[in-house]
Amino acid sequence: MPALAQVHAAFARQGFAGLLGAEIVALSPGACDIACAFRADLTQHHGLFHAGVLTTLADNACGFAALSTLPENAEVLSVEFKASFLRPAAGQRAIARAIVLKPGRTLTFCRADVFVGADGTETLVATMLATLMNAAPEAR
Amino acid sequence: MPALAQVHAAFARQGFAGLLGAEIVALSPGACDIACAFRADLTQHHGLFHAGVLTTLADNACGFAALSTLPENAEVLSVEFKASFLRPAAGQRAIARAIVLKPGRTLTFCRADVFVGADGTETLVATMLATLMNAAPEAR
Amino acid sequence: MPALAQVHAAFARQGFAGLLGAEIVALSPGACDIACAFRADLTQHHGLFHAGVLTTLADNACGFAALSTLPENAEVLSVEFKASFLRPAAGQRAIARAIVLKPGRTLTFCRADVFVGADGTETLVATMLATLMNAAPEAR
Amino acid sequence: MPALAQVHAAFARQGFAGLLGAEIVALSPGACDIACAFRADLTQHHGLFHAGVLTTLADNACGFAALSTLPENAEVLSVEFKASFLRPAAGQRAIARAIVLKPGRTLTFCRADVFVGADGTETLVATMLATLMNAAPEAR
Repeated sequence: MPALAQVHAAFARQGFAGLLGAEIVALSPGACDIACAFRADLTQHHGLFHAGVLTTLADNACGFAALSTLPENAEVLSVEFKASFLRPAAGQRAIARAIVLKPGRTLTFCRADVFVGADGTETLVATMLATLMNAAPEAR
Repeated sequence: MPALAQVHAAFARQGFAGLLGAEIVALSPGACDIACAFRADLTQHHGLFHAGVLTTLADNACGFAALSTLPENAEVLSVEFKASFLRPAAGQRAIARAIVLKPGRTLTFCRADVFVGADGTETLVATMLATLMNAAPEAR
Repeated sequence: MPALAQVHAAFARQGFAGLLGAEIVALSPGACDIACAFRADLTQHHGLFHAGVLTTLADNACGFAALSTLPENAEVLSVEFKASFLRPAAGQRAIARAIVLKPGRTLTFCRADVFVGADGTETLVATMLATLMNAAPEAR
Repeated sequence: MPALAQVHAAFARQGFAGLLGAEIVALSPGACDIACAFRADLTQHHGLFHAGVLTTLADNACGFAALSTLPENAEVLSVEFKASFLRPAAGQRAIARAIVLKPGRTLTFCRADVFVGADGTETLVATMLATLMNAAPEAR
């Protein structure tokens, strides 16, 4: 397993996470939570969190949950994901909580649930099922 | 069908599209293309377009393709989507081209292909299959 | 909620469930388990349960879990689903366990996990995320 | 590329395809069509083709389309798929037409469209996006 510091360092290199103000708020082997605060520039046209924001948080949480189970210096790629949007995403913060469902030599399967709200009053607004590949981008 | 101007107006209200610098580059009944230019703050940790950016473009293109087929003042919601990431997304521009596969009274099914590159040398990097609901957010 | 007997009656009208030898083994409001025994004519070309069998069990379990939450005489349609195949499906029985993630006026979101094995030694081999519509087939 | 005869032989070893009466009706490098005739024991509870039947045809067509692009003696596994059900599947025959969207060293991405009807009057009833792995079952 890579030092968790290595996972944090990879996350820090993501320009897009920075643009969203997303932060890793929990990280352990096989699990990762990533959150961001509501801002007007993260919305769709009804003023709710944009599906693309929820998806980015969930994709990232899955990727870093997967990375946390791999050997040092490993890399992961998003192969594909599916997200279902269960409820309107109105709230002050969005948080994606991902777990590894099945690690593997080549592929890692993850699930992420995305919640919106404040601590103690979170509502499940989306869920993702994702496949990651344990490899650098050219290897696919 | 809503005036296409109405579709453009709904897009203009999206804070997140603005943050990405995304623009509708083509719009006709049942089809919509949305593009954005490469920027360092749209990347994942290998410096390629982030899957969340590609997904946001595709989700938006599907949503506005769907909206373009609905009665005036209609609204659409993303119910769910699945995206597959076929190749590394390295290039100066990303463009999602969406079409309506099947319009319906309640649900609209769309497909979007996402390309990266310059005009004339675009590469297909991702594809999405999406379900949209013809309704305001509370109606789901 | 329909009488659970009504859910069982709808299942009994499914020709395809009969062909597979599938049976509802648990049913309560918002949850349904459907299982079938291994047979050589349910296999793919490596002699394992075919993905189509696992998917059929999961789709059915999701559908009847959804139906169990709807008003009497309601009907449900599969709008779409996504299934991930985590491990080789070798075993004497396959069982799909579905729950309703989010009921709704128009759409119901469900999740199903599919296990293979004997009681007490079940292995998770697949997982599904599904969207159902609360309607008769023509209404879509 | 394997001899197409080898692809046909792998298909012939599928117990489940036999149970459905499914047949490969077209096969070329990177494309495969698989069809079956309507029977009462292939239905859901409204008497239409069961989603599990349509999915099985599409999954098989994707698998054999992928296999047709791989080296001799290669094997493929279904990693995951997503299917959307666009219209009621009423008709005398169902046919899944699959193509390889992107071949790869490790993963193959395919799309399948499923039609119901008679020759010349086919209706698109479902579409699938699938990921296959180029490997024997234990390798995942």
